[in-house]
Amino acid sequence: MTSEERPPIVELSPEQCWKYLEKTFHGRLAVSVANRPSIYPLNYYAHDGVILFRTSPGTKLAELAVNDHVAFEADGILSDQAWSVVVQGTTRLLEAQSEIEAADNLPLQPWVRTLKYRYVEIQPETITGRFFNLGPEPERYPEEM
Amino acid sequence: MTSEERPPIVELSPEQCWKYLEKTFHGRLAVSVANRPSIYPLNYYAHDGVILFRTSPGTKLAELAVNDHVAFEADGILSDQAWSVVVQGTTRLLEAQSEIEAADNLPLQPWVRTLKYRYVEIQPETITGRFFNLGPEPERYPEEM
Repeated sequence: MTSEERPPIVELSPEQCWKYLEKTFHGRLAVSVANRPSIYPLNYYAHDGVILFRTSPGTKLAELAVNDHVAFEADGILSDQAWSVVVQGTTRLLEAQSEIEAADNLPLQPWVRTLKYRYVEIQPETITGRFFNLGPEPERYPEEM
Repeated sequence: MTSEERPPIVELSPEQCWKYLEKTFHGRLAVSVANRPSIYPLNYYAHDGVILFRTSPGTKLAELAVNDHVAFEADGILSDQAWSVVVQGTTRLLEAQSEIEAADNLPLQPWVRTLKYRYVEIQPETITGRFFNLGPEPERYPEEM
């Protein structure tokens, strides 16, 4: 197919979405308090159907304590292709020592040299993704033949 | 300064945030309906203190009609540095023909070859940004000297 023949948007299956999430380590978390959304960039690790991230006590954890419904997005962009996966679900703070020790052994690094002790898991309810074949838009007002 | 001496996180001024936004064209919009957040990737164009994007009638526009409070994020990641800017504000659908014609002349392209006729403007209330010097985390339990 030439680039003009490729469909501009392809819906990804949940399996395809997980493959993209598992090979990516940087995403964004959207939370909402009193119906006002906030968004945070974060490093994450996707494995076994959940998304794990680390954080320190602060605004993000406080907001999740008020409303644990979240949306999470990761994407990748090349010159002529892009993908984006969105997860909606709820968060859970890891509290059992055995869970925390298991998480300590995952390849999940914080972004910067700060101490981030708390692990939060996103438990997905829905996962959707799209693959984009980038290209110029069609003529808005095509000339008559 | 060596990499160990650089502060891991630097807060950006609003002016620095706008410079990052203006040289970037891909971000994510967080919206909330009934206190449930959603997140959408989008192409945008930042100019004159506002953020403009195009969309077609659909879920995103319907959600904004219910709650026009949004958060918007753009970021950039290199091997040892990263930045992220977050805007919180409200959205407004461009409706005046003169505004739409002016927007038509901006370098704002949709991501894919679909027809997206509606312009939406994010009017910022707050803008915050951070620059990250990436690096390994400090020792969690430093050994006693």
